[in-house]
Amino acid sequence: MAETFLVVGGDAAGMSAASKAKRDDPDREVVVLERGEWVSYGACGLPYYVKSEIDDLDDLVAIPAERFREERDIDLRTGHEATAIDPDTRTVTVETDERTDTQSYDELLLATGARAVAPPIDGLDRDGVFTLQTMEAGRELKEYVDAPAGDTVGIIGGGYVGIELAEAFRGRDLDVELFEMRSHVLEPFGSEVGETVADELRDNGVAVHTDTRVERVAGEDHVTAVITPDGEHAVDAVLVAAGVQPRVELAESAGIDLGPTGAIATDEYGQTNVESVYAAGDCAEMTHAVTGQPAHVPLALTANRAGRAVGATVGGDPTPVGEIAGTAVLKAFDLEVARTGLLENEQLREAGFDPVSVSITAASRAHYYPGGSEIEITLVGDADSGAVLGASMVGEEGVAKRIDTVAAAIQGKMSVTDLEYLDLSYAPPFGPTWDPVLTAAKVLGSKLS
Amino acid sequence: MAETFLVVGGDAAGMSAASKAKRDDPDREVVVLERGEWVSYGACGLPYYVKSEIDDLDDLVAIPAERFREERDIDLRTGHEATAIDPDTRTVTVETDERTDTQSYDELLLATGARAVAPPIDGLDRDGVFTLQTMEAGRELKEYVDAPAGDTVGIIGGGYVGIELAEAFRGRDLDVELFEMRSHVLEPFGSEVGETVADELRDNGVAVHTDTRVERVAGEDHVTAVITPDGEHAVDAVLVAAGVQPRVELAESAGIDLGPTGAIATDEYGQTNVESVYAAGDCAEMTHAVTGQPAHVPLALTANRAGRAVGATVGGDPTPVGEIAGTAVLKAFDLEVARTGLLENEQLREAGFDPVSVSITAASRAHYYPGGSEIEITLVGDADSGAVLGASMVGEEGVAKRIDTVAAAIQGKMSVTDLEYLDLSYAPPFGPTWDPVLTAAKVLGSKLS
Repeated sequence: MAETFLVVGGDAAGMSAASKAKRDDPDREVVVLERGEWVSYGACGLPYYVKSEIDDLDDLVAIPAERFREERDIDLRTGHEATAIDPDTRTVTVETDERTDTQSYDELLLATGARAVAPPIDGLDRDGVFTLQTMEAGRELKEYVDAPAGDTVGIIGGGYVGIELAEAFRGRDLDVELFEMRSHVLEPFGSEVGETVADELRDNGVAVHTDTRVERVAGEDHVTAVITPDGEHAVDAVLVAAGVQPRVELAESAGIDLGPTGAIATDEYGQTNVESVYAAGDCAEMTHAVTGQPAHVPLALTANRAGRAVGATVGGDPTPVGEIAGTAVLKAFDLEVARTGLLENEQLREAGFDPVSVSITAASRAHYYPGGSEIEITLVGDADSGAVLGASMVGEEGVAKRIDTVAAAIQGKMSVTDLEYLDLSYAPPFGPTWDPVLTAAKVLGSKLS
Repeated sequence: MAETFLVVGGDAAGMSAASKAKRDDPDREVVVLERGEWVSYGACGLPYYVKSEIDDLDDLVAIPAERFREERDIDLRTGHEATAIDPDTRTVTVETDERTDTQSYDELLLATGARAVAPPIDGLDRDGVFTLQTMEAGRELKEYVDAPAGDTVGIIGGGYVGIELAEAFRGRDLDVELFEMRSHVLEPFGSEVGETVADELRDNGVAVHTDTRVERVAGEDHVTAVITPDGEHAVDAVLVAAGVQPRVELAESAGIDLGPTGAIATDEYGQTNVESVYAAGDCAEMTHAVTGQPAHVPLALTANRAGRAVGATVGGDPTPVGEIAGTAVLKAFDLEVARTGLLENEQLREAGFDPVSVSITAASRAHYYPGGSEIEITLVGDADSGAVLGASMVGEEGVAKRIDTVAAAIQGKMSVTDLEYLDLSYAPPFGPTWDPVLTAAKVLGSKLS
């Protein structure tokens, strides 16, 4: 009998693993259990669906379920929830609306993803309170925006989802009150970027409240106000965008170890402490390229890559899941905003580094070429080793892919001097002769030496 | 008495060196001899001046001569031509319109640049024949375009200057006939890019003649036609853009060695075979990161960087000039066109590699995000070592800075697998989840393994 590769979770990590394992080892039986109805969907596109730049929720699906079944010969079972794992008998308990069953496996991948964090705020059970972690949540939010109860939406959380939705709501002519409990929005991008983005939000009509912890969401049945220490802010709906947390209950109940971040601990092949059980994607830890330590940065590329690697390993070719650099980018109205590596001094000192940083402003085009704008770059290096540790960037153009140069430098274990010596592209429409990254490295290098 | 650092040539390499040496060692006397009147100018901007996107030639000047003299205390002598070097007495013969003088030096930098190649074509001495290597040449071409003798310009050479000027001429409503003797335009970018760019040129009304060697430029006094084996092409002016060659006569006559490329040979600090004589910029060789061998790729960043390094070395801090990856980018109408490393099979085999390449097409944005376009990428790796050797890219957006990721991989001596594992940025407006570079690396990796 063919061996069975069982995958729990049918999004990026799960479907990447299933597809790769089946391609590399066509004789293997590959079964995917997905609780919901959607598979292989691009949750990152939901803000643009809410904004009405994308017409149909189906457009976000990379590969429809039928194609996995028919073209890739994957036994994809939607509406099937894995509720327990017995590692001794290598079986998983599966529940559907109709019945409870048992599915055996030879190898198991947990790709259970993450859920929206529910912050400790009273009143989040009222009508008119939304999140945006699932396709269903996206549909509900879009339906609300198409027929809103009033003009104003409150957003709890100034991370990338909060900011992308602020843009979406403004694009739908709604007023936005955004509440961030920290001193600036986009915390993992550093304070310089956070302040520039807050200005951009304000320029686009978003009321930004930083250092503001939401105490309570008020209203009878339907939400009517967000209550903060500053007072009451009238709203007609609330979006909670307070981050995500890994879905680890299934793993925990089976005795699978979690790591220091609270996500599932894995080795370099994505394997957990339990034999033949892997974890990948938003539910799992990865190794951070800067610290060499476990990190939980739930992003789409990581999920796809780790899933694919597990699929290759299961398919017979042991393949590491790789390291992450924590590279991220988002669009915030007319700005491109990006980061990579580690930026936060305290975190870096705890990891044994002696961080030194510089912030510079450079032009996105040659000084004489029309239409240019400014790019702000913060670059962080280690005073001891000279290594590049992290960077953030913000500007109207030329940011999204410029951050990748620093990501490559970090994963290539380059020093700030190595970065300064990169032979980067130059033509007047695309940058100054010394690329802004090189200028930042030059300035940081002189501070480090 | 203070030591004298003498610089011959007042553009990118020369002025970078002069500025850096003076900053690091303010007591040093720094003298710059410049034949012409322009210093520190951005010749790369000339096509956009011809196109009238830049109003004034002065706009191309990064730092005016007065500022070098007054703010940086550099003894900058325009209209001064160095005509001979005597390394034994450490003196240079200097000619001006009025007289001939001798200038002594302790350290000497040759930053004599490059000149436009005059191809072996009869009739290039006729009126209406232009080049675009100097500011004066740019001024003359602009004056012509402002009051052209007729509607049609012939361009001899389909390199980046030829293509940038095809765009400029079309932007000024002139008809363009472009002649390239090789089988495709933009030879160092590879045939895939060359063909895509030729299509873009044709779509924008440029008549592109590849595989077409110009035999003769015809006309009484003023040019009237370009004669090729195919026949006669009526033109009212001709731009010769057949590449550049290093200005090495001054060096040669002083017994300074040239390298295999015909440019001045230098060591890792930019020093020539003659003690205390350096060379940097378009007249000098650099070490190529892929081959470790001397290469001549005269581009602006290289000149700035090497000049600055020589200035630092002279100023007391020995600083390598670094390696080049041959990274280049240009705008060709609505396309961004980029390259890095080595792409050409024959050249790579001669250098001891076993090149394998793939060409892929990927999307510039997530499949569902509006406004995306296609990016074509060719990626070359070494079958023996797995190393990344080169890449080219072309597309309407997201190309100019995406090439830098591959440049970083090459200079970081990464393998194709290392490149595939980079944690590059992703958000729907800026690319697919797997960045096109990662997809290319994935496809190439499977071919190499």
